Amino acid sequence: MRTLFYKNRPQLIGFAGVGGKAEGESPAASDFDITVTDDMWGEKSFELAERKMFLTAVYKALSNASLSQKDITLLLGGDLLNQIISASFAARELSCAFLGLYGACSTMAESLLLAGALVNAGYVGQVAAATSSHFATAERQFRMPLELGTPKTPTAQLTATAAGCAIVREHKAEDRPALTCATMGRVIDYGITDASNMGAAMMPAALETLVTHLEETKRPESYYDLIVTGDLGTFGASLMQEEGRRHGLTFKNYTDCGAELYKGRPEIYCGASGCGCSALMLCGYYLKRMMAGEIGKLLFIATGALMSPTSTLQGESIPAVAHAVAIERGV
Amino acid sequence: MRTLFYKNRPQLIGFAGVGGKAEGESPAASDFDITVTDDMWGEKSFELAERKMFLTAVYKALSNASLSQKDITLLLGGDLLNQIISASFAARELSCAFLGLYGACSTMAESLLLAGALVNAGYVGQVAAATSSHFATAERQFRMPLELGTPKTPTAQLTATAAGCAIVREHKAEDRPALTCATMGRVIDYGITDASNMGAAMMPAALETLVTHLEETKRPESYYDLIVTGDLGTFGASLMQEEGRRHGLTFKNYTDCGAELYKGRPEIYCGASGCGCSALMLCGYYLKRMMAGEIGKLLFIATGALMSPTSTLQGESIPAVAHAVAIERGV
Repeated sequence: MRTLFYKNRPQLIGFAGVGGKAEGESPAASDFDITVTDDMWGEKSFELAERKMFLTAVYKALSNASLSQKDITLLLGGDLLNQIISASFAARELSCAFLGLYGACSTMAESLLLAGALVNAGYVGQVAAATSSHFATAERQFRMPLELGTPKTPTAQLTATAAGCAIVREHKAEDRPALTCATMGRVIDYGITDASNMGAAMMPAALETLVTHLEETKRPESYYDLIVTGDLGTFGASLMQEEGRRHGLTFKNYTDCGAELYKGRPEIYCGASGCGCSALMLCGYYLKRMMAGEIGKLLFIATGALMSPTSTLQGESIPAVAHAVAIERGV
Repeated sequence: MRTLFYKNRPQLIGFAGVGGKAEGESPAASDFDITVTDDMWGEKSFELAERKMFLTAVYKALSNASLSQKDITLLLGGDLLNQIISASFAARELSCAFLGLYGACSTMAESLLLAGALVNAGYVGQVAAATSSHFATAERQFRMPLELGTPKTPTAQLTATAAGCAIVREHKAEDRPALTCATMGRVIDYGITDASNMGAAMMPAALETLVTHLEETKRPESYYDLIVTGDLGTFGASLMQEEGRRHGLTFKNYTDCGAELYKGRPEIYCGASGCGCSALMLCGYYLKRMMAGEIGKLLFIATGALMSPTSTLQGESIPAVAHAVAIERGV
């Protein structure tokens, strides 16, 4: 059984999303807590700007929960950078414990899954789950220096400049979105070698996790008001639906954070990617739509492509993983 | 409270350590499960050799527990490489779930801590916790190409070519080493900027975690037959004792995996480092000494330096983290 059940329904009591310039033009942006017009955000390097976004998301989620950083026991999180320096250096500013995670763009789900597990079992009281990505730090690490102006291919996505954080706490009488269960993903690799086609590389993992989640929880697809994948992008999301129909899925209430974040902007090709994409859309948008009563039961499946530039140069294909977290209100 | 208590005492039912050539010459080597005489181990890249070590440690730990890979629900682990490709690509070969971690050289303790938490709470049955490092993959990523033959400085350590894995299972009547509690570390940075002085960079985190662990568990230092840090090396371990004495600690039963692995080889300067160092010493040596009845209560504090080459180039100092796991037999 790859599904963890949270009988004590830990709650998301504060959440915040921080976005960059392109993210500030999203149809969802009016819900975001903070958007900046300069992706450097006054810092002297892209990496420092990303770290500031990570830390700002944590502080803002805390303040949205009327808490300060001294009220949390633990930060669970990571990012895309080598040795997850955004998360690690952000953690240096906090007095709580830190468990670093790497699940590529699945990190928001991985951190929520572990936060839910630790809080549900009573190990810790209040925990922050957070992640970030930045177009400029990711692009120069994973692909080409920005200065080269390398053209993109049609299946390419753009790494979101964004961060998101959610504060998980034991269940109390307040009506807040609660974590009810989560399904851990396994690593799946269908042999895709094109690092500009992340949607195709990650789709099999997302679908396998969704199918496993529905089987193990005995929930029909229609149980959820919304099933949202992390950053398959428009191409990956269409593959997901095509392939998923063979498993009897209908995708009536399905979308993808990567397809939604830059919706209406075909010049960004297949949409957004990066840890920050699904973190921003979940913590900055969907959870707020839940609080507004528009979504009651949400299944969040963040997807991660686990390659590195070294593995790509050495001719490896792209393994992927996807973790699913069920978030429900009124339970 | 940063300590998690495992009342159900999950057990370590199988464990294995795999080492390279230098590790095979260790005074502890006769306990190691596998040592290879060629650090390439028949592979065509150092990265593939490290992945093979990681996976071999998992398989060997499983076979030492009379289990096959289908018997585990989850692999928890990571490594030092960018995007933890040793762990991720190893996980691709397994049918279980995968939660990727990054805690630098603290990863063996981080994975055991989370494995203990998940098994203790009954979320999962049998879990593998594993990590690896390889001198040649780490050196060319973190420092200089091997071909340069760059001389080392006196406080330098050598990244161990090694992997370790432990299988954690719910408590049964068998007499096995059990996880009784664990203390999560916080990120601490005393401003060390010399990437060849990891011992000094990591010592404050190790000491803070040790002091916090003893306080929160109300255990005296003498409770443990052995307190072993991960890879402070000989210089870091001596700093640990010097500084710790100011906190009233005696260090009567203290050593460091990095100091022990290459003991008697002053040409390796301050000893071993890397995720694989403490993983090999714990899973390939100390747990076997526990089974032999020589150690009853062990506190394992793996230490991680959380910098990246990018953070170092950008002038950052080195933040560190250390997690402590208490392992006891006959409980």
